[in-house]
This record gives sequence, structure tokens and C-alpha cells, in this order.
Amino acid sequence: HTLYVSKAAAKTQMEFEYDGPSMKTEVPGPRSKELTKQLGEMQNVGAINFFCNYEESRGNYLVDVDGNRMLDYRHLLHPYWLSAFVNRPALGIMPPENFPEKLSESLLSVAPSGMSRVQTMACGSCSNENAYKAMFIWYRNKERGHNIPSDEDMSSCMINQSPGCPDLSILSFMGGFHGRTMGCLATTHSKAIHKLDVPSFDWPIAPFPKLKYPLEEFKRENAQEEARCLEEVEDLIVQWRQKGRPVAGIVIEPIQAEGGDNHATPDFFKKLRNIARKHGSAFHVDEVQTGGGATGKFWAHEHWGMDDPADIVSFSKKMLTGGFYHKDELQAYRIFNTWMGDPSKNLFLAEVLNVIRRENLLEEVTRSGKTLLQGLYQLQDQYPNMLSSARGQGTFCAIDIRDDATRNSIILKARDKGVLLGGCGERSIRFRPALVFKEYHVHMFLNVFSDVLAEHN
Amino acid sequence: HTLYVSKAAAKTQMEFEYDGPSMKTEVPGPRSKELTKQLGEMQNVGAINFFCNYEESRGNYLVDVDGNRMLDYRHLLHPYWLSAFVNRPALGIMPPENFPEKLSESLLSVAPSGMSRVQTMACGSCSNENAYKAMFIWYRNKERGHNIPSDEDMSSCMINQSPGCPDLSILSFMGGFHGRTMGCLATTHSKAIHKLDVPSFDWPIAPFPKLKYPLEEFKRENAQEEARCLEEVEDLIVQWRQKGRPVAGIVIEPIQAEGGDNHATPDFFKKLRNIARKHGSAFHVDEVQTGGGATGKFWAHEHWGMDDPADIVSFSKKMLTGGFYHKDELQAYRIFNTWMGDPSKNLFLAEVLNVIRRENLLEEVTRSGKTLLQGLYQLQDQYPNMLSSARGQGTFCAIDIRDDATRNSIILKARDKGVLLGGCGERSIRFRPALVFKEYHVHMFLNVFSDVLAEHN
Repeated sequence: HTLYVSKAAAKTQMEFEYDGPSMKTEVPGPRSKELTKQLGEMQNVGAINFFCNYEESRGNYLVDVDGNRMLDYRHLLHPYWLSAFVNRPALGIMPPENFPEKLSESLLSVAPSGMSRVQTMACGSCSNENAYKAMFIWYRNKERGHNIPSDEDMSSCMINQSPGCPDLSILSFMGGFHGRTMGCLATTHSKAIHKLDVPSFDWPIAPFPKLKYPLEEFKRENAQEEARCLEEVEDLIVQWRQKGRPVAGIVIEPIQAEGGDNHATPDFFKKLRNIARKHGSAFHVDEVQTGGGATGKFWAHEHWGMDDPADIVSFSKKMLTGGFYHKDELQAYRIFNTWMGDPSKNLFLAEVLNVIRRENLLEEVTRSGKTLLQGLYQLQDQYPNMLSSARGQGTFCAIDIRDDATRNSIILKARDKGVLLGGCGERSIRFRPALVFKEYHVHMFLNVFSDVLAEHN
Repeated sequence: HTLYVSKAAAKTQMEFEYDGPSMKTEVPGPRSKELTKQLGEMQNVGAINFFCNYEESRGNYLVDVDGNRMLDYRHLLHPYWLSAFVNRPALGIMPPENFPEKLSESLLSVAPSGMSRVQTMACGSCSNENAYKAMFIWYRNKERGHNIPSDEDMSSCMINQSPGCPDLSILSFMGGFHGRTMGCLATTHSKAIHKLDVPSFDWPIAPFPKLKYPLEEFKRENAQEEARCLEEVEDLIVQWRQKGRPVAGIVIEPIQAEGGDNHATPDFFKKLRNIARKHGSAFHVDEVQTGGGATGKFWAHEHWGMDDPADIVSFSKKMLTGGFYHKDELQAYRIFNTWMGDPSKNLFLAEVLNVIRRENLLEEVTRSGKTLLQGLYQLQDQYPNMLSSARGQGTFCAIDIRDDATRNSIILKARDKGVLLGGCGERSIRFRPALVFKEYHVHMFLNVFSDVLAEHN
């Protein structure tokens, strides 16, 4: 890593500096205006001053894409321009020239159905926090009938009081995981250890269907269980409206990951999406864990087969950067922070997406996933007292183990044989191989897993 | 940027893969254990499995620092090992080998007085959110007398209810800015636009002293104003305890930055710190804006001259990475997320710190800052109807303008002449030059600023 910033290089950069400002155009100049217009098609550009040429900027001088060189008295972020890589651009104010292009090539090239706008964020929790804020703002604008706050809104919000800080809620599901900052944490219900000792909000929590696997074999019971949960969702929405804390949004994972790889059917998600629409709540699909191809489609919600699957889709992890896609009407001009993500991650993501396409990795995932799940079904038949509920989509698979102690022992034994497995939920093992996991890797794994199971039987 | 990831390189990395696992030691092996011990002196290592050799890891294989090569079924983060730069290590679980060393060279080499532990985070908001969580957890452990939660704690927290999610609060100050995620936002009170339409917590908000500048000329009035605010702080702590929402922590900026560059005296901060101690609340100094050298000391709170200035100090921005330092007793074993920051930022920070030391940049800042403030005093005498309240520490300076419209016109005019200025508060201009801002840059600026003011008079 140190390759890119040597002491010698730093010294040189330091010593070279321009001898004064030099203005070529008004600011923002024509090139900045053109780029702002381009980026405006993809995200909110209200706070952008101009686009910056980070390669030419150094010392105390910032050079914009129109060649204007300005003495910078507002260097908010960096001790100085040690190098383009050290500097972390403030994307919300002064994005680099290639930012709109790289956003198109990376995040927007895989945008979910119905969504043409994306907001990048530094991490998964910030992505969900800001998605919730976008839903609250959207809901309040809807309640007001316009987006102009009253004087009372403006003054009461400064002291954390309603109506400026309204009593709105987000409906989440038991077993869900959406992050660990305080807003996210109020919708996270997977493990007590995440939530313990942290103040929270009085928001409604619905049951997530507890289905029997394989899903195809228990259609009727599973449909009943899903109907029960959907009914509960509607009851909670009504109850919380009655107690003066309306549900501004519903947040859900396509597969509850941390909570134990809990699946639901496309029918459940379609009906849930309709309930959200009926009650005027935004529908937020959290793809932080499931997005990026592991289910065999780029987004897990694509398995639902809907044209209008969501109002907001958040992502992170495999996408290398955090952020969320959203519909035009959930455009939040007030969503903003210093870094708004890190553009170097977009460059890498564009490259990763190229490889995924060139190597047909989603087909690979579907093929390997099928082989993996078949193998798990066989082992489950062979060890019925130890294994149950093999389940998965693509290589995003899991299986339940007899008990927590056996699970942990299996994970350790597999590690000693050179296979790294992870746990989730109370007694599941989850499989999260990379997208380049091929069928022969599956066989290699099944052999080791089979040996480990034989030792435990 | 694309230099580092070419399509050709990606292809080669893809094609090269190991042919199976290969185990040399138990896991974690001796080297991992040694590094975990080292890192354990600096931060919480409870979740670390082993240290990873990211250079040798590729395809589906992860190689640890003891040379164990493991087939990875838990690739949580990356589509695959495209390159060490693409991969964003999960620092909480599998840090790279040089992580403890780089942490020592970077963040720990500038640790505030009394603090030997640091937790990195991806952004400023996450830093404060997690600092608040650490204070809540610490406070609850203090209340319980131990750190073992009751069954009721464990079950109630899953549904956002007390006692598991306790009714605790953070006391903040009017005019403060601590971030935009929901926990942080409940302590932010600088602009309505940040808070509007987002649900919040009923937490106490104290007045921040409104002082007269230069501070030395208004000692008596300023001391009275500070006493008034401190009294209000104590009243609020008592009130919130009485209403069953005890103040677990107090959060404050050494200089309120977004809120308009509001200063207070060392005496105020010393007394506030004592109030926190007296009432059993943690004391959190937010140096996200002020840290990194701009005030002439590395941390603004060093100007207070205290041996024990804080329990928690959070940072971001100029530090390139987010995070917080904390005292041993605020060690939160449950503070955790996926990325826990980005180790490449530590490498850059180490280099930046070297330059700061080698070039004596803090002395430079003190010198330039003195010249800047003297120049602002002179202009203020020259234009008493337009300018007032010049103030600052190091180059972290500001001046008030007659009104908001004049302020904005001055900022635009200066930009046309090649000088970038920023506003803060209702009618202030703030100066935030880089650490390499020298006296001749100050003179260059003062000439332009003087011309702009002459045009407005």
C-alpha cells in the first residue's frame, strides 16, 4: 500500500505550489454546470458548488474543472493535498470530474427496476439511517400537502419536539437486522447483544414468517403463516396510527440474514408491498446483505418478479460503497453529509461489475448454488438428527444444526480442515461464498463438511 | 486512479487460484495470537478470528498471517479478492497484519491525554453514534453494579422497551452539531433544516455561552454568561433525572463550528467537566471539526490545559478516518460493525502526521493564525458597521458580517477573485485554511478580502 505515498513524494507535493489564484471563468463555469446537470439526473445536486480537478489541486489551491485556481480558505477535510488518493473529496459539495460517469458505470448500471436515482453513503448503517430520513421527510411533505415547513415546524424541531420532529415510526420485523446506529437499531431485532442498554423508539415490530423448508413441500402451511404475519402488519399500522405515531415506512430484508437466513415467498413480499401502498407507507427493501449477486440475481428482490418492487433499496458490503436507490418522489434535498461515500469505491465497483458480466458470474452462482443446496439436502437425509431446514437462493444458503453447541463445534472442526464457515441466528450455519465459487469448490466443501459431520454423529 | 486496477490485472487475479486448503497451524495460530494481544492494548479485539494476509489471499481462498490457506464460505464483504485495494477488510473480524503497527503510528501517536484506546469508524456520524452507545452501556453497567444484563434486560430490549432499552439521555448544547444520523441528530441544534421532519428523543439541551469578542476584553461579562449556562446544565441534569431519563453523557464541541464558531473559555470547559464528574455523566468532546491541528494544537481541547479533559474524544474529517478515543472504563465490547473504518486511511494518516511533525506545521498554524486574526481586527476597526466579533484559535477563525445577504455577497465576490470562503452560523464567515497556510497566504487573502469589503462599503 505504501507504494502510493512515499515520503519523498509527499515532500515534492508540499514544495510545489502555485503562486496565486488564477480565474478563467465565472464559478461555476460551463464545464461545472454541464457536469452538475448530468449528475442531477442521478442524484440531488443542491449543495454542489463546482466540480473539482483533484489532480491539479495542491497546497492551498483548489483547481476546478474549468481551470479556475482558487486559494482555499475552507479546506474542510484534508490537512492538504498530499495526493489525490489521500484526499477524500467532499462529494456533496465538490465532486471530481469523472463522478457522474463513474456513477453511471457502477451503481446506476445495476439500478433496481423503477429507480434511476442513487445516493452514496460511507457505510451500511448510514445508508439505512438516511433512507429512513428520506421516508420521514417524504411522509411529512405528503401530510402537509407541500414541502414548505411551518414556523412551528422550524422552531419545534430545534428542541427535538413535535411537529418539527414528528412522532412517526418505521415498521420492522422481528429477526431483522438493519444496522447499529440509533435509528437503524430501533428496527434491528436479531440479537439482544446489539440493542442492550441503548435507548430506542416506540416503533411497531411485526412477526416475520417462520416457514418450513423446502418451501415447495409445505406450501399450504407456509401460506397460512405468511397470511398471519401480513394480518399482524396491518393491525400494527392501524394501532400505531391510532396512538399518533403513523408508520412512515416499512423496512424488510428479502432474506433475513443475521436473524438466521429466514426466507419468505414472493407472494408474501407482493402482498406486503401492497399493504404499504394501501396505508400510504413507503416500502424500503434492505439489500445490504443480499444485494450484489449471491442469490443468483443481482438483487434478491428480483426473484419476486415485480415491476415496482420498492420505493427505496439500500445497499453496502458487496457493493463496496454504501448508499440507497430511491424513486423520484422520495428525493430528499436535505439528505447530506460531508463525505457522502468515497468515490474510489465507485471506480472499483465499476471494475467488479465488468468482471461479473464478462464471466457470467450470476449464472455461475445459480449453478453452484443448485449443487450446494442439493448436497445439503442429501446430507440432511443422511443425518436427520443433526441437520434440518436446508434452504437458499443461489449460493446464499443455510442449514440448521441440532443445537448451538454442535453448530459451534462443527464450525471449529471445519476451520481446522481449512474451510471457513459462519453462523447466523440461533443454530444455523450460513454459506456466503464469493461470486467466483464454482462447482468444484462446492464438491471440495461438501467432502470436508461430510467428514466433519461423520465425526459428530 | 484506474492505474491500480486494470482489466488485465483483474483477469490474471481471477485465473490464479490455489488448488485447495492448506493448514500449517491451529487457527488462530501463534502470529495471529501475538497480533491480537498487541491490538488488544489499543482496542477491543473480542470479535477477531485471526489476522489476514490480504496480499496472499485470492479467489475463494483466504490466507492468514500464519500461512493457513482456507476455503472461504463466509466472504461477507467482497465479490472476490480483485486486489488488496479493492478489498475492504472487515477490521473487526480479520484485520491485516500491519494494523496494530499502523494504528500506533497514526491515531495512537496523537492520542489525547489519558487515553490509550481508539476505535475507528467509517464516518463522523458513526463515530458519535458509537461513542453515545459506549456511554449508555457504561452508564447502565454502573447502575447495575456489574456488566451482566438481567433476563428482563435481554427480553425487553428486543422490542425496544425499557429496562433493556433504557430511558437514558445525552445532554447537548443549543448551536451544537454532532452529525445527521438519528442519535447524533438528537444532539444537533445548529440549523432547522438538518432536523426537520425526523423523529427525535426527549433529551436535555443547554444554552452554549454567547460570549463577546475579543474574549480578553470582556472577561467579567463573559464569566457571568458562562456561569449562567453552567447553572442551566446542572438544572437540566437534575430535571431529567427526576423525569426518569438520567443524563448518561454530555457532548460538546471545543468550538461550536457549524453553529457559528462560538468559543468558550478554558474555565467553562473545566467547570463543565467537573459537573459531569459530579453527576456521574460521561464527558464526550467532539473534535470532528476542531481536531487535527487547525487551532494550533493537535486537539482543540489541549488549550484547556487539563490532565483529564474527557472520557471520550471523537474525530473524523482531517483525521481521514472516523473514530473515537476513550478511557479504559468506557471500553465497549459490544461496539462493532462490519468495516469499523478503512485501514488504508490509517496509512495515509501516518504519512500526514509525519509531515505535520517534520514541517512543524502546528507552529506554522499558530503563526499564520496570529497574523490572520490581527488582520481581521484591523479590518473590523476599519469597517465597524460591516464587521464584528473577529475570533479564532490558530487559523480556526471567523468574523461576523452585518447581515446574511452581505455575507453571501462577500463570499461570491471573493470567489470571483479566486478566494474560497465559507459561511457558518447566521451571519459569520469562517476561515478553515489547510495546515500549510503560511503568512504570505494570509497577506494574499487579506488583500483580496480588503478589496471586497471596500466594494461593499
